[in-house]
Amino acid sequence: VHGGVVISLERLRRVRGLEPELWRMNVEAGVNTADVSRLARENGLIFPPDPGASEQSHIGGNVATNAGGPHAFKYGPTGAWVSGLEAVLAPGELATVGSATRKDASGYDLRGLLVGSEGTLGILTAVQLRLAPAPALALPLVAFIADLSSAQRALLEILGSGLQPAALDFLDAAAFALAAGSFPGKPPGEFTRSSERDGGGVVLLIELDGSPGEVDEQLAELDQVLGPYEESPLQRPAPSALWRWRDGLNGAIASVRGGKVSEDICVPPERLEEAIHAVYLLGAELSLPTCVWGHAGDGILHATFMVDVSSPAELERGLQASERSLALALSLGGSISGEHGVGYVKRTYLGADWDGATVAAHRHVKEALDPKGLLNPGKKDPLAGSPPAE
Amino acid sequence: VHGGVVISLERLRRVRGLEPELWRMNVEAGVNTADVSRLARENGLIFPPDPGASEQSHIGGNVATNAGGPHAFKYGPTGAWVSGLEAVLAPGELATVGSATRKDASGYDLRGLLVGSEGTLGILTAVQLRLAPAPALALPLVAFIADLSSAQRALLEILGSGLQPAALDFLDAAAFALAAGSFPGKPPGEFTRSSERDGGGVVLLIELDGSPGEVDEQLAELDQVLGPYEESPLQRPAPSALWRWRDGLNGAIASVRGGKVSEDICVPPERLEEAIHAVYLLGAELSLPTCVWGHAGDGILHATFMVDVSSPAELERGLQASERSLALALSLGGSISGEHGVGYVKRTYLGADWDGATVAAHRHVKEALDPKGLLNPGKKDPLAGSPPAE
Repeated sequence: VHGGVVISLERLRRVRGLEPELWRMNVEAGVNTADVSRLARENGLIFPPDPGASEQSHIGGNVATNAGGPHAFKYGPTGAWVSGLEAVLAPGELATVGSATRKDASGYDLRGLLVGSEGTLGILTAVQLRLAPAPALALPLVAFIADLSSAQRALLEILGSGLQPAALDFLDAAAFALAAGSFPGKPPGEFTRSSERDGGGVVLLIELDGSPGEVDEQLAELDQVLGPYEESPLQRPAPSALWRWRDGLNGAIASVRGGKVSEDICVPPERLEEAIHAVYLLGAELSLPTCVWGHAGDGILHATFMVDVSSPAELERGLQASERSLALALSLGGSISGEHGVGYVKRTYLGADWDGATVAAHRHVKEALDPKGLLNPGKKDPLAGSPPAE
Repeated sequence: VHGGVVISLERLRRVRGLEPELWRMNVEAGVNTADVSRLARENGLIFPPDPGASEQSHIGGNVATNAGGPHAFKYGPTGAWVSGLEAVLAPGELATVGSATRKDASGYDLRGLLVGSEGTLGILTAVQLRLAPAPALALPLVAFIADLSSAQRALLEILGSGLQPAALDFLDAAAFALAAGSFPGKPPGEFTRSSERDGGGVVLLIELDGSPGEVDEQLAELDQVLGPYEESPLQRPAPSALWRWRDGLNGAIASVRGGKVSEDICVPPERLEEAIHAVYLLGAELSLPTCVWGHAGDGILHATFMVDVSSPAELERGLQASERSLALALSLGGSISGEHGVGYVKRTYLGADWDGATVAAHRHVKEALDPKGLLNPGKKDPLAGSPPAE
């Protein structure tokens, strides 16, 4: 790309409207996601999407990538909470799409099309958000499970039980050990020791929410489902402490060798075990310390390979591992991006598992809304660049 | 349209896959929506969308119009439950969009674009549906409220209270009186008498769901919120009886004068009272018996004018009233279709409240995916035909 322009929306920081009694908020694209959540909470409401690093994220970026997070399991990704948006469309006109009404079945879902389009179809300048009443109680819980295959069975039993946890996350023993020192609870000893346990235990982070009565009932059910699989009884960390700790995980893992290459891939949840084993194999083949964590309920896994960024050879192997993890997701009937979009690294894999008609439709949409290719050029373009190696 | 072709998908009736333990179902477009719901229920799950006449609806049609229903208040419209779909795209290729994975942030949301496109962008042949665990208890409740302005305040208080009912529907006294004979409960006397009470009382149909404990807690809260507004204590009809009765309402109302013209418009919920008054005024001006009912929580109202279909003059006035109700919705910041799409009658109003850039983007999307205009021609075309009269 020559002559590219980077547009910063950092100064679009205004909260244009907040109507808590109607569960609505209208904010400009540069407002911090953490501030959106805080404003909702201060008014007895929640803005459920909770991608990591919300203090550093702008709501516009979260909408443009349709970001997920632990609570997307029950509440859906960012786009599910956007009822309208304002965007600059090519060649440079301001458009308002959708509105504050809760339902609209009149036109095509241009709102949904712009959500997650990563700036390639238009530039979001403001979003009309839906909020929800805050549950009276949110109870985070942690289960330690001895091995991967038990964890896969436990996951399927939770889904099959009729429980609907607000969040259903996991970390493998290697990921857990890297942050065990700051864990707000008492893990069984074997979970605090190093990454030699690759392929060993699994930690489930589960949040139940609802009224106190509802949470009690769910907890009893969950206890029964998990009982046969647990290493130790369900632990209850202090409410906000668990997710704060979880949010710090990225940094903890990156610091081990100075860097990491991590993909957010997605597979059907019944194939998580298979996917994780294959990720370990990849790491072993390429001699890279490996760990995996993610959103088990949604089948999203962050396949993470730790690298010394000062070593070009290691970095190269990291990129290789990462690329191969994308092919792996597709081979298991999954997606190359569960929750954070495609960006630059994954772009050659976009569309690798689509049929010809879908690739064509995707291209036609881009050409229709950005005929001169001005918006975030080269991104979100199926089968751009070299075809996948595999 | 000359030489039009009608494509029937009635023979696409196969359930391709049902994985209850993974909350998934894959069905062809011609499967009855009632059968989808029944299959889910028989497996301890729910398919939450519940547009009327599910025995006569095909799931493909419900997806193509992104149909709503009472439970869309808590659970969202049909599109929220579609994770993937199979469609024939122009000029005639089969495409699979999305999949069974619960999250996918990789490509543009072509899935969402086809949902609600009313056959103008592609022909749906099969859909991959998400299901949800069935709540242990669903408790339908009925509140009788003396006048419209109390009902508006009660609605806002319910929303402001932090309650999240599964459904929050309403009928005005006129609509209620027309079906009072078969109501599964004991309405206060004044609600059973005729449509002279236009502008009089309002009946709220509310469903609470969750675990028994959760429902109890919500009920106590709801009782407290509604207490000052109610004519008589909250009534509890037999579980399925209320929605079966509600589903029969359309027929009951149509039978009064042989026909009716009814629009499904949508306004911000805080403007329902204003909208309903304006609908009454329209009916009075055009000398048509009028009633209003709909989904209060979502601000959706079915503005209904009863007509003798054998009288051309009356039918003409009915269409006039209906058209003016669309303009009314737009003037209140709402939408011309809350839940059933645009179809033929409303087509001249589509886009009447959009800015130029949005109209252009909408047209470009149609041209991109159906360049020869083969698919459901003339429909879903913003500002097609004559501009709104107003």
